[in-house]
Formats: sequence, C-alpha cells, structure tokens
Amino acid sequence: MHITQHTDYALRVLIYLAANTDRLVTIAEVSQRFDISRSHLMKVANQLVREGFVDGLRGKGGGLRLARPAAQIAIGAVVRRMERGMELVECFGHDSNCLLTPNCKLKGVLATALEAFLHSLDRVSLAEVLEAPQRELLYLAKHDAPHPAPRRARARAARTPPNVG
Amino acid sequence: MHITQHTDYALRVLIYLAANTDRLVTIAEVSQRFDISRSHLMKVANQLVREGFVDGLRGKGGGLRLARPAAQIAIGAVVRRMERGMELVECFGHDSNCLLTPNCKLKGVLATALEAFLHSLDRVSLAEVLEAPQRELLYLAKHDAPHPAPRRARARAARTPPNVG
Repeated sequence: MHITQHTDYALRVLIYLAANTDRLVTIAEVSQRFDISRSHLMKVANQLVREGFVDGLRGKGGGLRLARPAAQIAIGAVVRRMERGMELVECFGHDSNCLLTPNCKLKGVLATALEAFLHSLDRVSLAEVLEAPQRELLYLAKHDAPHPAPRRARARAARTPPNVG
Repeated sequence: MHITQHTDYALRVLIYLAANTDRLVTIAEVSQRFDISRSHLMKVANQLVREGFVDGLRGKGGGLRLARPAAQIAIGAVVRRMERGMELVECFGHDSNCLLTPNCKLKGVLATALEAFLHSLDRVSLAEVLEAPQRELLYLAKHDAPHPAPRRARARAARTPPNVG
C-alpha cells in the first residue's frame, strides 16, 4: 500500500516550507535538498499553489511560502487534495471489470477503512508534524551534516557527575 | 492510494471461495471468471495457502477451498498478510534518502493512519462482505449473464397493484 510519490513530495515541500517561514524557498533549493527532479517538483508545487496551500512568487528573488500558518493545514486535507487515485482496488474505478462488483460489499468496507485513514490524518496539522524537529529542519536548510545534539543537552551532559554508586 | 493487485486478487479469490463452499474451485475457473492471468493467480493462491487462509488439494479433481469458515477470516488479516509493501511513503523503507527522516513526525502520523485503516478492516469478516450477494455470486459461478431480480422481489412486484391514486 502506497501513497503516490506526488503526495509524498507534496508533504516534504510543505514540511520544508513550514520549517522556513522566515524566507522564500526556491524549487531549486528543495530539489537539491531532497534530491528530487526539478520538473517533478514543479508539478507538485504548481498543484500546491492551485490548491491554496502555497503561495508562489514569480520573478527574481521569488519562491514559495506557505499560504497560511502550518497550524491551519491538516495533513488529511493535503492527502485528499494531492492524491490523484483514491481507487484502493480496481472495483473503485469506472472501468472496473470485476464480476463481483454489482453486489459485493468489499467496496464499501474498503471505503470505510480509507475514510478512517484520512480521518486520522485530518486530526494532525502540518505544525504538529514539525513540532519537535523544527530546529533540526532549519539546520538542515543551511548545512549538509546532521544536526548536532542540542546545546542544552550537551551542557546537561557536561554537568552530570559520573555515576559513583 | 492503492492496495496492490496481489492483495486485490487475493480478496477476490477468497470471496469467490466463500461463495462456493460446497465444492472445490480450480485456478482455471477463477482465472476465467475474473479474466486474470493464471500464473498471477497461482502466485496469489500459493500465498493464500501458505498463510493458512486456503487449502489446496492437488491432483485430478483437486482445487481450492477456504481453510476455515468465512466468518473466521478478517479482511484486515488478509490485507496485513498479503500486502507486501506497507511503506506508505519512501521514509517507511530501509533505503530512505529523505533528509527529514531523523526527527520528522510524518512517519508516525502516517503509521497511525495506516493502523486506523487496517483496524477498520479487522472488524469485518469475509462472511460479512458476502452476506448480501451470496446468491448472486453463486449464480455468477454457474452463468455468464448478470443475476436476474430475486424471485421474491419479482413476486412482490407482480402483487403490487398499479398506482391508481
């Protein structure tokens, strides 16, 4: 079971933008950061703009930014809008050739499960996904190496006396 | 978002077997009925046998049958066992190259949603999927045309006086 790469990339773009609200982010930067093709990212970004999740500012010095605060963007809404094929199995589609279709309850059973999946994501905002790692994400936006241990943790470690039982 | 074709076919095979518990069903019959390649079905059937959902009787007059009553087979169990890739997005996999991974909460958020999806399916048995259409499925196993209106409905229609209001 997979979410399409299109939605996967959309979530990454949004998470990255949410971690960099102090500036505009270019497609080139996201492309380099995640090692994703620029043309694929362009399609993702265009849809994010069309769906109202992202503002795109054209021209020199332009770039992308969240269209509204991360706390007001539900992950469920992103998946519902970006995911093109919600046909979990063939019989969800219009060109189904499954002979069980007319009376089979499977379609309804799977649709209920899909709704449970999306409903779970509706309850989580982009801001909540970011809550813990924002510092690390900001760091990643500026460096290539992994984020070092937070200063406070290092200081605490230095203060802690060795265990002398 | 899709369930793999492998799982989709597994569900169809199980539904078909559950509608034909009075006899053994051959791969050839299921292949013809659903217009699915015999070699693909063979793989599906082999895994259904390995997972203990189906008994396979070899030799002349052999075929497939449910290994236990349909009421004791949860759709969630079938999806959990048959679905090979439960990596909803790349960062679920071992070869993830997403730089957000170390601290991103998205993975946990999606895992919770996936569990909600499967939990919804855990509550439905194969027998419940079949409850209504068993008569139609049995009919489909013997004929090519769609099932006609049930006899009782036709009799009721015949008894109903024309609306003379």
